[in-house]
Amino acid sequence: MEQGGKTAARGWAARDASGLLSPYTFSRRVQGDGDVTIKVLFCGICHTDLHVIKNEWGNAMYPVVPGHEVVGVDTDVGPGVTKFTAGDTVGVGYFVDSCSACASCGTGHENYCPRLVLASNGVDHDGATTKGEFSDVVVVSQDYVVTVPESLPPDGAAPLLCAGVTVYSPMVQYALNEPGMHLGVVGLGGLGHMAVKFAKAFGMTVTVISSSPGKREEALDRLGADAFLISHDAAQMKAAAGSMDGIIDTVSAGQQIVLLLELLKPMGQMEVVGAPSKPLELPVHAIIAGGKRVAGNGVGSIADCQAMLYFAGEHGIAADIEVVGMDYVNTVIERLERNDVRYRFIVDVAGSHLDATA
Amino acid sequence: MEQGGKTAARGWAARDASGLLSPYTFSRRVQGDGDVTIKVLFCGICHTDLHVIKNEWGNAMYPVVPGHEVVGVDTDVGPGVTKFTAGDTVGVGYFVDSCSACASCGTGHENYCPRLVLASNGVDHDGATTKGEFSDVVVVSQDYVVTVPESLPPDGAAPLLCAGVTVYSPMVQYALNEPGMHLGVVGLGGLGHMAVKFAKAFGMTVTVISSSPGKREEALDRLGADAFLISHDAAQMKAAAGSMDGIIDTVSAGQQIVLLLELLKPMGQMEVVGAPSKPLELPVHAIIAGGKRVAGNGVGSIADCQAMLYFAGEHGIAADIEVVGMDYVNTVIERLERNDVRYRFIVDVAGSHLDATA
Repeated sequence: MEQGGKTAARGWAARDASGLLSPYTFSRRVQGDGDVTIKVLFCGICHTDLHVIKNEWGNAMYPVVPGHEVVGVDTDVGPGVTKFTAGDTVGVGYFVDSCSACASCGTGHENYCPRLVLASNGVDHDGATTKGEFSDVVVVSQDYVVTVPESLPPDGAAPLLCAGVTVYSPMVQYALNEPGMHLGVVGLGGLGHMAVKFAKAFGMTVTVISSSPGKREEALDRLGADAFLISHDAAQMKAAAGSMDGIIDTVSAGQQIVLLLELLKPMGQMEVVGAPSKPLELPVHAIIAGGKRVAGNGVGSIADCQAMLYFAGEHGIAADIEVVGMDYVNTVIERLERNDVRYRFIVDVAGSHLDATA
Repeated sequence: MEQGGKTAARGWAARDASGLLSPYTFSRRVQGDGDVTIKVLFCGICHTDLHVIKNEWGNAMYPVVPGHEVVGVDTDVGPGVTKFTAGDTVGVGYFVDSCSACASCGTGHENYCPRLVLASNGVDHDGATTKGEFSDVVVVSQDYVVTVPESLPPDGAAPLLCAGVTVYSPMVQYALNEPGMHLGVVGLGGLGHMAVKFAKAFGMTVTVISSSPGKREEALDRLGADAFLISHDAAQMKAAAGSMDGIIDTVSAGQQIVLLLELLKPMGQMEVVGAPSKPLELPVHAIIAGGKRVAGNGVGSIADCQAMLYFAGEHGIAADIEVVGMDYVNTVIERLERNDVRYRFIVDVAGSHLDATA
């Protein structure tokens, strides 16, 4: 505990656009009445972290402590906290606060609040830059903390907090979760492999669409997908035309959207959850002729996240992960850039020596 | 009546890609058990007709008799017809048959049937090319005929059969028809002016977005819109950012879609009903950040069309039109190409001498 009640925190931060991470000491805010103090156990790393620490989106506020999909344990709670007690296993995701006053907040879609406070490299209500969970401790309002079911492994559950809810939320919101429906999952990475797992648990038929023939076996044998399409194989794609109720596009490769839209049945929906740098080229006839929809999705609400975690707990759904120590994260960044991961890196924060460089 | 029970028909057809229309004699199919024979009174002309007669979409099957938004009177009905009797005022729209067997047909969305039979330049179940309603008589299955309320003027009602249902259907389907909602209508032409009328009848706040400053007075004073935005005025557009629940885009100008998406509230929906030749450029962040949707819409179902007509009848909604004789249609085509119409040309088919050229 620091002066003024603030909590001392140790983490790893990037100092500049090299994105190189190294030990960093800072402090968390004073635990308020409704706040929970969480000891971080495991934290995932996703492509958003990569973009931010290298300032690829031009919005990095260094030093940047990345990390926004975390499982930890409550160590202390404020007097106004009703949802959690010390010792609970909990999760924190992409955002840690919102305005509570706008229409999005009022209708339970706070993930679309214009004043959303991101967990990492965000702007808190007091103007401070938020620090993510590549650190030993975090203080978060109870309203942005979720319960992680005991049945889930804490390391494999971490990616549920961002990747998991990002694919689960639009499936539920747009009713792409009914047994017997046919879902296409584009891209088999952190998001895609979670989408396959949820869709199979919903009782859906799942086709993975990928540019990598080498992922066929993974998709069919290990993840239980029902079919696999090579996205650049025109004959395969054409044979599957008009067969899918929905598509979760985790890649959003601009050129392919027409081919993907052709896979949809009339009135089918494509949920775009991957953010490429180039705009999609969307010929209007491709959506008018069949009354099709293209929807963007940004993570999910806290309620969706909690519902997703309970569903994952019941069905034994966790991410396929590679657990590493903090001293390995700079190598993780390099490996992520060449997509060398199946399917998510998890930093064992509690098990790492946070003060030591590699 | 011709040999074999076929009905002799007189109309105007285009013979080649010049699109020049001239008198044309042909025959309609034998009236079947479930068919209705309709004397055409008024028929609108829309941009689709223009594209087809000039073979701009490369699919013209000459001779092409255009016309697919018609109001007429039943002159005869087959013995199996239960919905209509001779003397009824009825309407026919963009399509005149579908397969009745696919999932779209089975769920009342036959407008997305892959075997939809278009009213003009379509392929009928027997392989024949369909002829549109720039002609004195048409034979149509009762299931693709709708009742036109007596309260509506038959000339002003004709555009409801295509333009009307094309904007009404997505508003109802996507719940963009609730009192107090804010709707943006992009483009003030045949489709756009109908969208404004329906939205006002639904009790919505309506903002017209147009590239033509000259349409402000029309929009506000005559059509009753609440606000008017110049689409290329960045300051105006920015001031209205985040204010709209939905947008009906009747123009689909590729470059503007990001500006338009910014007008939407979080989770807002854009319905694209105009079909430009260039693809839309859709940056993914523009839909992910606010969970926004872009949906295509192709006309509407027969049930939607009928519901729309009853709603229009109750609220006195008809198109603003310019009625012309058939001998003026070649001039109509020229005027349409330079958008010289407010807002729809209607051919007074029954009042024209169909055998005479201009």
